[in-house]
Amino acid sequence: MDRPLPIVHATREVDARGRLHLEEIELEFANGARRRFERLRGSGRGAVVIVPMLDRDTVLLVREYAAGFHRYELGLPKGRIEPGETPEQAANRELKEEIGFGARRLSLIARLSLAPAYMNHLSHVVLAESLYEEKLPGDEPEELEVVPWSLSRLNELIEREDCSEGRSLAALFIARERIARR
Amino acid sequence: MDRPLPIVHATREVDARGRLHLEEIELEFANGARRRFERLRGSGRGAVVIVPMLDRDTVLLVREYAAGFHRYELGLPKGRIEPGETPEQAANRELKEEIGFGARRLSLIARLSLAPAYMNHLSHVVLAESLYEEKLPGDEPEELEVVPWSLSRLNELIEREDCSEGRSLAALFIARERIARR
Repeated sequence: MDRPLPIVHATREVDARGRLHLEEIELEFANGARRRFERLRGSGRGAVVIVPMLDRDTVLLVREYAAGFHRYELGLPKGRIEPGETPEQAANRELKEEIGFGARRLSLIARLSLAPAYMNHLSHVVLAESLYEEKLPGDEPEELEVVPWSLSRLNELIEREDCSEGRSLAALFIARERIARR
Repeated sequence: MDRPLPIVHATREVDARGRLHLEEIELEFANGARRRFERLRGSGRGAVVIVPMLDRDTVLLVREYAAGFHRYELGLPKGRIEPGETPEQAANRELKEEIGFGARRLSLIARLSLAPAYMNHLSHVVLAESLYEEKLPGDEPEELEVVPWSLSRLNELIEREDCSEGRSLAALFIARERIARR
């Protein structure tokens, strides 16, 4: 499926104050060197990246509009952890909203950071297995295209321009190692 | 080597205006749905993540202070591309500054995004081989600890709490695929 890109009706600069929390910290290193570092502080609840396995080798990817590059990107389903949710619960909810599946087996297999040098953003990688059909309404503007992919073909996936997200790729390789080791 | 963490002398909130460019875009999807998305706009020059190979199996990791989590993180050397530099040139400069090696062979093996849904940040992954000793002064507050690691032991690396960066892990798996295929 080749969807046309969304139409951009307007683009405007937004005041980042109050929306983004930028922090300056004054540091003294063990050797006495002093530096000021800046970091972005998120909510701290974190996100989930889900590796949904249809069978032992087939993972379900999604193709989703990525505003950062104004293009469609192929990657893993993901989303924010809502207040009161465990990573596993958030993963199961996102799965139902984004691809119309729930999972009977959910296991936290890794924690991945985005840019630890200046962000505290953390993603919990949840391996989702024993899938069953169940759809929850989500807030996506359009139905996401689901793309089954074989874990034995990750070498082809990394060649694709539209599958660029480091976090998704790392999660896929980690899931493959975990499953192979069983 | 177990370095004590830097001392935090002060932490203060900084006005994000003018430092961080937050943009709102008004979108209309192919099905007619309208949404406002926010995205962070970076300089667009991007960054390099370097995979420095001492031999066919040994990669040189660095242990560096990560302000986002206030801890030391194990990962690949990386840095910003300066104006006028190619990714390969930036990679070679960063290598000399961070670990005291230059490389005779530099190849761009992937482009990784950080969070394509709301950032345009792109990292060029450069495989660096045929290393030779050469040190350039950098702006690091302290000498980085260099940690040789075997590509055949990535499964142990992903188990470590202090090696969390999705981008570094994806780059390592991609480099391993590339080298294995030769």
